[in-house]
Amino acid sequence: MVGVDFGTLSGRAVVVRVSDGAELGSAVHEYAHRVIEHELPGSGVRLGPDWALQSPQDWLEVLKRAVPAALAAAGVPAEQVVGIGTDFTACTVMPTTADGTPLSDETPELPHAWPKLWKHHAAQPHADRINELAARRGESWLPRYGGKISSEWEFAKALQVLEEAPDVYARAERWIEAADWIIWRLTGVESRNICTVGYKGVFQDGSYPSKEFLAELNPGFADFVDKLATGRVGDDTGGVTLAPLGGLAGRLSAEAAKWTGLPEGIAVAVGNVDAHVTAAAADAVRPGQMVAIMGTSTCHIMPSDRLAEVPGMCGVVRDGIVPGLWGYEAGQSAVGDIFAWYVESCGRGHEELTALAEKQAVGQHGLVALDWFGGNRSVLVDHNLSGVIVGQTLATRPEDVYRALIESTAYGARMIVETFEQAGVPVEEFIVAGGLLKNPFLMQIYADVLRRPLSVIGSDQGPALGSAIHAAVAAGAYDGIEQAAAAMGKRTEAAYTPDPERADAYDRLYAEYRRLHDFFGDGRMLHTLRAIRNEAHA
Amino acid sequence: MVGVDFGTLSGRAVVVRVSDGAELGSAVHEYAHRVIEHELPGSGVRLGPDWALQSPQDWLEVLKRAVPAALAAAGVPAEQVVGIGTDFTACTVMPTTADGTPLSDETPELPHAWPKLWKHHAAQPHADRINELAARRGESWLPRYGGKISSEWEFAKALQVLEEAPDVYARAERWIEAADWIIWRLTGVESRNICTVGYKGVFQDGSYPSKEFLAELNPGFADFVDKLATGRVGDDTGGVTLAPLGGLAGRLSAEAAKWTGLPEGIAVAVGNVDAHVTAAAADAVRPGQMVAIMGTSTCHIMPSDRLAEVPGMCGVVRDGIVPGLWGYEAGQSAVGDIFAWYVESCGRGHEELTALAEKQAVGQHGLVALDWFGGNRSVLVDHNLSGVIVGQTLATRPEDVYRALIESTAYGARMIVETFEQAGVPVEEFIVAGGLLKNPFLMQIYADVLRRPLSVIGSDQGPALGSAIHAAVAAGAYDGIEQAAAAMGKRTEAAYTPDPERADAYDRLYAEYRRLHDFFGDGRMLHTLRAIRNEAHA
Repeated sequence: MVGVDFGTLSGRAVVVRVSDGAELGSAVHEYAHRVIEHELPGSGVRLGPDWALQSPQDWLEVLKRAVPAALAAAGVPAEQVVGIGTDFTACTVMPTTADGTPLSDETPELPHAWPKLWKHHAAQPHADRINELAARRGESWLPRYGGKISSEWEFAKALQVLEEAPDVYARAERWIEAADWIIWRLTGVESRNICTVGYKGVFQDGSYPSKEFLAELNPGFADFVDKLATGRVGDDTGGVTLAPLGGLAGRLSAEAAKWTGLPEGIAVAVGNVDAHVTAAAADAVRPGQMVAIMGTSTCHIMPSDRLAEVPGMCGVVRDGIVPGLWGYEAGQSAVGDIFAWYVESCGRGHEELTALAEKQAVGQHGLVALDWFGGNRSVLVDHNLSGVIVGQTLATRPEDVYRALIESTAYGARMIVETFEQAGVPVEEFIVAGGLLKNPFLMQIYADVLRRPLSVIGSDQGPALGSAIHAAVAAGAYDGIEQAAAAMGKRTEAAYTPDPERADAYDRLYAEYRRLHDFFGDGRMLHTLRAIRNEAHA
Repeated sequence: MVGVDFGTLSGRAVVVRVSDGAELGSAVHEYAHRVIEHELPGSGVRLGPDWALQSPQDWLEVLKRAVPAALAAAGVPAEQVVGIGTDFTACTVMPTTADGTPLSDETPELPHAWPKLWKHHAAQPHADRINELAARRGESWLPRYGGKISSEWEFAKALQVLEEAPDVYARAERWIEAADWIIWRLTGVESRNICTVGYKGVFQDGSYPSKEFLAELNPGFADFVDKLATGRVGDDTGGVTLAPLGGLAGRLSAEAAKWTGLPEGIAVAVGNVDAHVTAAAADAVRPGQMVAIMGTSTCHIMPSDRLAEVPGMCGVVRDGIVPGLWGYEAGQSAVGDIFAWYVESCGRGHEELTALAEKQAVGQHGLVALDWFGGNRSVLVDHNLSGVIVGQTLATRPEDVYRALIESTAYGARMIVETFEQAGVPVEEFIVAGGLLKNPFLMQIYADVLRRPLSVIGSDQGPALGSAIHAAVAAGAYDGIEQAAAAMGKRTEAAYTPDPERADAYDRLYAEYRRLHDFFGDGRMLHTLRAIRNEAHA
């Protein structure tokens, strides 16, 4: 099997053995244009603040370069590969023609013709209007997203295109996630995967937001859903049919076979999202298994057999992680990013700070911090919050602040876990994936703060491995994702266990974190500071 | 005139012209033992945490070295000097025999025999008991100190000696401020100046705390006042007679003339405190002239014709700055210390940070901080508070934090000024002295935050100049401190004026500072963090 993970800065291909998930070889291709934030390639047209675009050509290069390179690295003949699966960042979304041609190929000088990367945040005013109207109308889908949808998602970004570039909007016969567009390129068949449709496309209980709702936002937006609800795969049950995760999206086309060096006609799995597909790689697709993908930010993914309205979650989607279960997502906007910020601020290295910080007893630094340096995704869903550090004295050293910042992100994780449980959705196991896994000091703090054992994924290329697992299901090697994950996924249970004494000490500090959470969480002060800041910059 | 300023690490002598205050020459002698914090000189006996002692011999060396050196630097023949004045840190206090011999000369191996420097903080439990009992008994002097006396002051330090070294306490025939001890050395005559007696000796309305009060603290403490109330100078009006500021303490003794090279028999002014004597140097001894001596910490000194109970002030003392007026004192525990702490934390220099920070518009950094890194002296009188920084994002740069910390100390100063005015004590003029005066960026921030012009002192050795002014009065060259200060003191009015637009912007940020002040000022969270810290260290 081949799994391909399309990330923010690069794409990674990995060759995986179907029987046991052994990773035989991998290769990474860095996107030539990385993230397009300031000006358009070629034309040099300037972009506004908070814009973030990508180039579809960069993604195709991953197929052409990383896939053959991974095969070569694995020493596996292409003929032995029986399927390919992919995952993508999301919501990364783009306008195309009816045959899937990106509008940025036709009019590269128009900013809105390009794919908008997940972290394009210039549609915040549009998201605000969507949320306001949905709350006023009492739209039934709103609670499924913790009460607020994100500016990163499909509807907000599309509304921005309509209102700022009506011409581009009119020419866009499709508005499609990159996760699905790449499948279209691989198979020649258009499909829409349930995961992005649910989490990013606001599709709930069999339908998108209503035409009346969309028309009230903007009369020109009334028929927007027509740009989404095409390319059907699987059973048609009424209005819209979507492609189930682990399903067969199609067969590898002759053209794509030429790009990748893989055999024409092999199975291509339905598209998926990097975080969600990691659950399979960690063999964590059963109810109550929460996978935290911890890197620059953290994404929490958990299947459950119960539907509940968890305050501040990013979303709950039926079949959104594995078919047959509700899939929950929550997140922390900045985690590793905070530590990197502090390292840059204080001019000392991670290793030096860790060596000093790990000698400390819990609470010895006298500090508690709020981990909102990138806003708060869960459970407050407020990107305009900011960080707070409390308790400094003239004796406070950089390693004290560094440790307090790590702890603050652990408190943030505990807040999410507790919010799920209080909403009636049990968290049975906490599994860590992602880059921060490599920091045992941080891992032990999380175990102590969460007061629970931490399991860890057994791969450092979780998304690509997860995509290969999905490909194995699509190719028919396993009956379903759960079986494939059990055979091919990798998880070490209770790799870190809490120390009761340290956990008790953290309980006291966490109580103070909660007091800060309550005081600053209403945004009264932090929004004022941000407003003053923005006016001063203007 | 010669003025001598005894500081924390060194003593400075300055030669000043009587007619106009011109500073003709100066010299500094660093104390050989500086601050004794860890072990006693000679015996190597270990000291406990929060101890801070000094050596009387170091002070005498200042007379022997710095005074002749200053004369030499000035090129002034010793015969032309007609008086000498001194000022000291306070409360720096010591046990002596009846003839003024320091007990540390006799038993240098006993820690409690040594002078306790102002920043000896090991008597906090004793101060706590004094405050508790005084509050319970409703002692009338307590409100004169903002409701709490400090562990730094005479009674707390003496009670510690009594209870930890009763033998030393019994041998101490005198318990005397270094400010008065040095005068005793210079003149051979014991005196007690009104300033330290009032601010540090809890002397109000003609008397010390009652025998009953002291006995209730500890029966052995009942007659403590006998160790204080001797060495009378001036009119005897009832119980205790004290030496007025600007008064003549005595004449230079033959021995002291030999030490200093000055003529025997010249006028020696009554002892004084470094901060309080600076008011004369700034020609700011009239009602409503608040002098802020801004350095590592800030001390606020202001004469007034009104008596009021200002919440959280350090003290109000009749005749405590100049005869005939009430003298108010308030303070900020850490100011320059905070900036030095941050420079050390972030590894960047003051100049680099200032160059970047001064380009910013007000509020552009999005931050507000609480300046409690060394606790809060005024208006909360709580050394167990600590600092808070609010509003950081991943885009926050070190110069942003640096600027926010400077601003936080300006907000702290505004809080003090407003508290005085709300208590009915008008602040007519704000005059800055001390090392931070040299930072025009900081000065402009203070002017903008305070919304008032800042006057500045015209000397960078304010205390020594002030002492020389007091000496001129003692020698009869002027009728009083006000006249001498007018002739010899140096002040530039409105050296910095507020910009209305920046001041408006700061009003909004100050409102947030006050919200933080209210939330964290009760100490609930910050005391908890400190308690957890102290337990973790134990």
